Amino acid sequence: MKLWQKENTVTSEKIERFTVGRDREMDLFLAEFDVLGNLAHATMLETIGLLTADDLSALKVELFSIYKEIQLGNFIIEEGVEDVHSQVELMLTRKLGDVGKKIHSGRSRNDQVLVDMKLYTRDRLFQVVRAAEKLFDVLISQSEKHKNDLLPGYTHLQIAMPSSFGLWFGAYAEALIDDVIQLNAAYRLANRNPLGSGAGYGSSFPLNRTLTTELLGFEGMHHNVVYAQMSRGRTEQAALTAIASLAATVSRLAMDVCLYNSQNFSFIVLPDDLTTGSSIMPHKKNPDVAELLRAKTNRMKALPMEVTMVLSNLPSGYHRDMQLLKEILMPAFDEILDCLDVATFMLENIRVKENLLADTKYDLLFSVERVNELVINGVPFRDAYRQVGAEIGDGSYTAPRDLKHTHEGSIGNLQNDLIKARMDQELARFGFEKVEKALSDLIVS
Amino acid sequence: MKLWQKENTVTSEKIERFTVGRDREMDLFLAEFDVLGNLAHATMLETIGLLTADDLSALKVELFSIYKEIQLGNFIIEEGVEDVHSQVELMLTRKLGDVGKKIHSGRSRNDQVLVDMKLYTRDRLFQVVRAAEKLFDVLISQSEKHKNDLLPGYTHLQIAMPSSFGLWFGAYAEALIDDVIQLNAAYRLANRNPLGSGAGYGSSFPLNRTLTTELLGFEGMHHNVVYAQMSRGRTEQAALTAIASLAATVSRLAMDVCLYNSQNFSFIVLPDDLTTGSSIMPHKKNPDVAELLRAKTNRMKALPMEVTMVLSNLPSGYHRDMQLLKEILMPAFDEILDCLDVATFMLENIRVKENLLADTKYDLLFSVERVNELVINGVPFRDAYRQVGAEIGDGSYTAPRDLKHTHEGSIGNLQNDLIKARMDQELARFGFEKVEKALSDLIVS
Amino acid sequence: MKLWQKENTVTSEKIERFTVGRDREMDLFLAEFDVLGNLAHATMLETIGLLTADDLSALKVELFSIYKEIQLGNFIIEEGVEDVHSQVELMLTRKLGDVGKKIHSGRSRNDQVLVDMKLYTRDRLFQVVRAAEKLFDVLISQSEKHKNDLLPGYTHLQIAMPSSFGLWFGAYAEALIDDVIQLNAAYRLANRNPLGSGAGYGSSFPLNRTLTTELLGFEGMHHNVVYAQMSRGRTEQAALTAIASLAATVSRLAMDVCLYNSQNFSFIVLPDDLTTGSSIMPHKKNPDVAELLRAKTNRMKALPMEVTMVLSNLPSGYHRDMQLLKEILMPAFDEILDCLDVATFMLENIRVKENLLADTKYDLLFSVERVNELVINGVPFRDAYRQVGAEIGDGSYTAPRDLKHTHEGSIGNLQNDLIKARMDQELARFGFEKVEKALSDLIVS
Amino acid sequence: MKLWQKENTVTSEKIERFTVGRDREMDLFLAEFDVLGNLAHATMLETIGLLTADDLSALKVELFSIYKEIQLGNFIIEEGVEDVHSQVELMLTRKLGDVGKKIHSGRSRNDQVLVDMKLYTRDRLFQVVRAAEKLFDVLISQSEKHKNDLLPGYTHLQIAMPSSFGLWFGAYAEALIDDVIQLNAAYRLANRNPLGSGAGYGSSFPLNRTLTTELLGFEGMHHNVVYAQMSRGRTEQAALTAIASLAATVSRLAMDVCLYNSQNFSFIVLPDDLTTGSSIMPHKKNPDVAELLRAKTNRMKALPMEVTMVLSNLPSGYHRDMQLLKEILMPAFDEILDCLDVATFMLENIRVKENLLADTKYDLLFSVERVNELVINGVPFRDAYRQVGAEIGDGSYTAPRDLKHTHEGSIGNLQNDLIKARMDQELARFGFEKVEKALSDLIVS
Repeated sequence: MKLWQKENTVTSEKIERFTVGRDREMDLFLAEFDVLGNLAHATMLETIGLLTADDLSALKVELFSIYKEIQLGNFIIEEGVEDVHSQVELMLTRKLGDVGKKIHSGRSRNDQVLVDMKLYTRDRLFQVVRAAEKLFDVLISQSEKHKNDLLPGYTHLQIAMPSSFGLWFGAYAEALIDDVIQLNAAYRLANRNPLGSGAGYGSSFPLNRTLTTELLGFEGMHHNVVYAQMSRGRTEQAALTAIASLAATVSRLAMDVCLYNSQNFSFIVLPDDLTTGSSIMPHKKNPDVAELLRAKTNRMKALPMEVTMVLSNLPSGYHRDMQLLKEILMPAFDEILDCLDVATFMLENIRVKENLLADTKYDLLFSVERVNELVINGVPFRDAYRQVGAEIGDGSYTAPRDLKHTHEGSIGNLQNDLIKARMDQELARFGFEKVEKALSDLIVS
Repeated sequence: MKLWQKENTVTSEKIERFTVGRDREMDLFLAEFDVLGNLAHATMLETIGLLTADDLSALKVELFSIYKEIQLGNFIIEEGVEDVHSQVELMLTRKLGDVGKKIHSGRSRNDQVLVDMKLYTRDRLFQVVRAAEKLFDVLISQSEKHKNDLLPGYTHLQIAMPSSFGLWFGAYAEALIDDVIQLNAAYRLANRNPLGSGAGYGSSFPLNRTLTTELLGFEGMHHNVVYAQMSRGRTEQAALTAIASLAATVSRLAMDVCLYNSQNFSFIVLPDDLTTGSSIMPHKKNPDVAELLRAKTNRMKALPMEVTMVLSNLPSGYHRDMQLLKEILMPAFDEILDCLDVATFMLENIRVKENLLADTKYDLLFSVERVNELVINGVPFRDAYRQVGAEIGDGSYTAPRDLKHTHEGSIGNLQNDLIKARMDQELARFGFEKVEKALSDLIVS
Repeated sequence: MKLWQKENTVTSEKIERFTVGRDREMDLFLAEFDVLGNLAHATMLETIGLLTADDLSALKVELFSIYKEIQLGNFIIEEGVEDVHSQVELMLTRKLGDVGKKIHSGRSRNDQVLVDMKLYTRDRLFQVVRAAEKLFDVLISQSEKHKNDLLPGYTHLQIAMPSSFGLWFGAYAEALIDDVIQLNAAYRLANRNPLGSGAGYGSSFPLNRTLTTELLGFEGMHHNVVYAQMSRGRTEQAALTAIASLAATVSRLAMDVCLYNSQNFSFIVLPDDLTTGSSIMPHKKNPDVAELLRAKTNRMKALPMEVTMVLSNLPSGYHRDMQLLKEILMPAFDEILDCLDVATFMLENIRVKENLLADTKYDLLFSVERVNELVINGVPFRDAYRQVGAEIGDGSYTAPRDLKHTHEGSIGNLQNDLIKARMDQELARFGFEKVEKALSDLIVS
Repeated sequence: MKLWQKENTVTSEKIERFTVGRDREMDLFLAEFDVLGNLAHATMLETIGLLTADDLSALKVELFSIYKEIQLGNFIIEEGVEDVHSQVELMLTRKLGDVGKKIHSGRSRNDQVLVDMKLYTRDRLFQVVRAAEKLFDVLISQSEKHKNDLLPGYTHLQIAMPSSFGLWFGAYAEALIDDVIQLNAAYRLANRNPLGSGAGYGSSFPLNRTLTTELLGFEGMHHNVVYAQMSRGRTEQAALTAIASLAATVSRLAMDVCLYNSQNFSFIVLPDDLTTGSSIMPHKKNPDVAELLRAKTNRMKALPMEVTMVLSNLPSGYHRDMQLLKEILMPAFDEILDCLDVATFMLENIRVKENLLADTKYDLLFSVERVNELVINGVPFRDAYRQVGAEIGDGSYTAPRDLKHTHEGSIGNLQNDLIKARMDQELARFGFEKVEKALSDLIVS
């Protein structure tokens, strides 16, 4: 039975299934956050006289008990109960009767979902950032390990200039910093308290939203209650956009791996664990893991569009459409975490080929070095460029294989220490410790 | 164990989970089509001497037995078996030994998946077309029933000219015809035989692809084997594009319903089954079903983008990325069928308000009628237009409420019979009967 | 001045610029179709007594004169005139006075734009189909020419089995057939008459829409006037979806070209016309044309999304938003025609490398041939597969380079004649001749 | 002639047009930034001995002279000159001969475009943020002005609870803060120095990248040269994603305006400047400006997808495809600035209706107030909810129109001062002053 259900309403099962959708499955992810939201809301209600001190004590005991069940994996949404919010309220009411009913004062399911989603999204973005950091660490470590292993550098898929595995691994590490910057923007959108906005038009109760903001460790609140409601969808959009950016980084890395693993490049070797055979060709070692990594992360790039599709041209105010955002957002977190984990595993186990540039087919990689030699000897750049072009044409060109790149970020000076320092700096902006402390205080209070 | 697995390969569980993904779940949808593909392939192999007549008889018996199990819902993919193709082959080999092994001659898993996907997609598109036809029938019937119930017509969300529920329902019926045209294009792409293309480069066996094309009831074959492989993804893309078009029709209809159900319009009444209440506002009857219909169909409009994401810039030749297309396509069929079903239910049960145009606020809807009166009396259109503008300005305008629209497709002449005839004509293009006959012959042969 | 402008309205220039946007530029593309629409509408008005025979004669003379000016490239939309419809009406009114004003009877700008857009889209889709046919012809011709030039076939970007340039070129030719099928669906949506639907709610005049349908060579009409209006956007969407499909074909072809042109593949040679140099590396010959072809066609794949963005959740009835669709659709036609032209040029001038498979690194391409040898000698497929795997492992494998692929669509039997016949069959479905005859009759009538 | 052009290359005009595309038009936007990049690069080259002090002085004089011409609008890219970089170098070489040629030392066109694009994007994002701030100020001011003008609040498009114009305007103001947070993430990606990365593989010259980073006022550099190149596309993607987010805010606002302007809502009045008439209906005042604002901003939401389309599955290293990103990004800045300007104008001139809630049809808006009255008098929430439902059912309900919302962000306590303070805080994060000082120092040095 649903909390809003009137006696004269008969809902056919087909419609029931259609409206509930995957909500009960998705809501399990929200359970722990729903308890946190309840704890904060109840604590606040007591300060404005809508709960007695005894009510609050009783609610805290029960909510803590539910929280423990959730941690133990025992929490379920019972058959016939619409969502996690109803389930928690039902459990409270069973134990505490009227006190359980009082906790919904000054609150709508709309701001209850909202605060749960904010807490959930904040938490998962934190996990994503941590997983990105792990991948970053492996990339930096591989970059350092292989800083002297040269690699042809390509432009236009044409051999261009000397590169190195140090540069290649390091480039993706640095890419992750830019992804973390975008994740931080999303995190800040998630880190705002919507509680107290009710169904989007506030309440006539004298709620203390500043208090719940502090209790839940938010950076601040969404002040305007209409905006608090409007942030639904925008938070998801921002999170998925940042995830899509991160996915694009992993996808490009996977594309490189697939290409470099082709016999025609043959720059890397993938361990047997990461390859599969063919049902028809007995000689095959296919890079299926890298390909699926590429496919899955590429697919994720469409996620922000899904949210856009749902939200487009909806006038302000809540619409049930927004329920669907859960099943767009939530599986995406699992998917990106999975992909980051597998990418980290792949990068740890990848083997690079040595002495690649010894092959004479790569001689032309050094043509710019030859131009620069002439420039250093006083030939203007454009003239040197023409001279080397002529040397290549008449066969008099010889590759100056002695590389002396020394500037910031070049083959000879990767600056991985500075890249690492930047990542640390970006991670520090999140203020995860403050959040963790607030939530831990709230639970044990 | 996997068919291609070599003795020295150890695949860690994490990687196993990552690569298999939702494939075993998705593959259950393919089971019946895999049996059909096997039947056709085996029948053909016998004609070119790669199976004996006895082999074929034995295989047919076993395949028919598996087919029946699938129909009964008893078919499963066993633990540790990679996909439906391996499962079927395993079942054959268990029963028939070497004969079961022979059936993979002249075939790769690539063209096996391909032919399964073609058969599956063709089948599901057929179901979608049938569901669209049901919705069409309800719309036409409602249009006829309410042909005299007037409705304000809007442009720019401003009241514009008189419309009717007859026109409104009928418009969506006609929209479905254009969707069916696009579904037909997708259907024709699915209705091509890729079997015999192997891993995309054919086979040195003298396969008779014309025969399997006929046995499986295809319109024709993908001749070029490289293209047969390349059609992977394109078929899915075409199907999802057509589904997205259909979804857009339903989504706009749902938007109209949500708007017309608002107290500020109040043109329709939704039955209680299709509305829900609020946890905080006791007076609410929210059109959640229409909203979720809108949201789900809007979300589906992003599906073609997901396929695009996966396929973009993949060079020709199979890539494991394509496996992911299954889990984009397959749930989409369930979703659109569900949405069409609910939309049909909603349209059947919607109640329209009568005498809406009696309200004086809709007087201006008739201003064009007034202009036309003047035109018929000889005033040039542009002058009549200015005169009526002046009448409205000085208050002398009176609404000529006597409508006499008679031309094709107007309020007084909906032409629903012609619209229905066109739909029948478009449906006839599919040639479903031919397909059904071929498959039925193949199973009982 | 605008036709609807009231005396008391002052429109600031900023707003004027914002609302007109690129409309005057886009409308030039519509001019010839606006004249055609006018001719059909006027001819019809005379049959129902809203124009005299003399009026009609006079209008035909002037419209024909305007049509000739358009063909000569002399037509302009004058400063201060809002759009092509106003310009044509202005020119008629200048010459014919009241008769020029009468032509707008029974018509709204909404159905006037609609019919222009339908005629324009139909025409441009025709041009796209013709350009695709040219590319098809070159592909088939190259396929035939190079049917004996072998090429490594890849799966997973790993060398897999022998392919040929005959197969490679031919595959893209056959791909174009599937694109043409989708273009045909779009064409049929464009080939419907909306004229007579007014602002979306028809007219009280006894318009003869069947007559204008015939005069303009349409396959039929959009019967329901509300749907006629709703087809705005849907027609554009369908056209852009089909264009996106075609663009995806060209984009994949361009990706192959870029890859095959890389020194690491080195399968093809691009003429100097199609390559460019580097400002820093004197040795470079970059495949910029293929890259830009890839980029431009990839970008086009987002076009349907742009239309979706504009249309999402708009309730039924015209909205000014739809004006923006012109500048999404119209430049897309120029772009795809340009890309098809350059792709055709590139394909005509591409040079393929010979004897590629002589290189021992491609020995493993023939492993399936070896398996099949064993199968033909009676070894069950799965056992033969394992034996060849073992041969490769212990070095005893030798590549059986004698290919005897004979089945339909394989290296030895490309069936380009059947592919060409299919294309012809698909082209015949368009019925271009009927359209051309109708329009030519209308102009000279 | 192009800098890289070899004597034996003949480029046909068709190909020339195809490859240059809209580049010369787009490059005009880059001219001032190209001069800035040249100034920084030249200054640095002198410190490492690749230019003499005299060379540098001469270059500075000429570059400053070119800069002034750009500011005056006199700069053009001459016929036959490929891009802005070639044009500037040509102008330097004409005046300074060999010195002009020397400036390209240690640089590739790739990092030259990159640095120009970074500087351009940073500049335009700054302009967008300023324009968003203007809109924000108008929204806050309207919110304050109308804080006592009540408005029906909707959920599910059903009347729900009392809202106010103060809340409605203020909500969009607060929305802009979240957009600015995302713009800041994009800004930080743009605010990184790629100069010195050459064609993506650095240089053997001892470049001082730290110096150019400081001279150009960047927050820091892209250290890894491969990543510097890889940031091409990512920067554009981030910028367009942030713009799309901002566009979505404006689009929703425009949707509200279109709806509230409908006769069925009639909450606002648009000035005549912002409405247009109909060619057929003399009574119409259509909100075309709001509709086009909605359409244009909705369309912009597809922009990130266009970039994704171009970049997907491109392996690392420069590809010519990236040139196309210019014509995706650059017009978008003009469009969003235009839309923000028009939105600001519209919001300044919108007129709100007063006493809307006096209409009895809005009585039910107050049902939650009635529930809350009961709760305050001790009735548990769920029971009060049922009681009020019953009152509405039996007609005994009377609306308690006396609102006393006092909590943070509610009708009676908008907290616009805190919202304004937050915006100021977010704007301060950009550090525009530092950038402006650096550039001004560089120009006059």
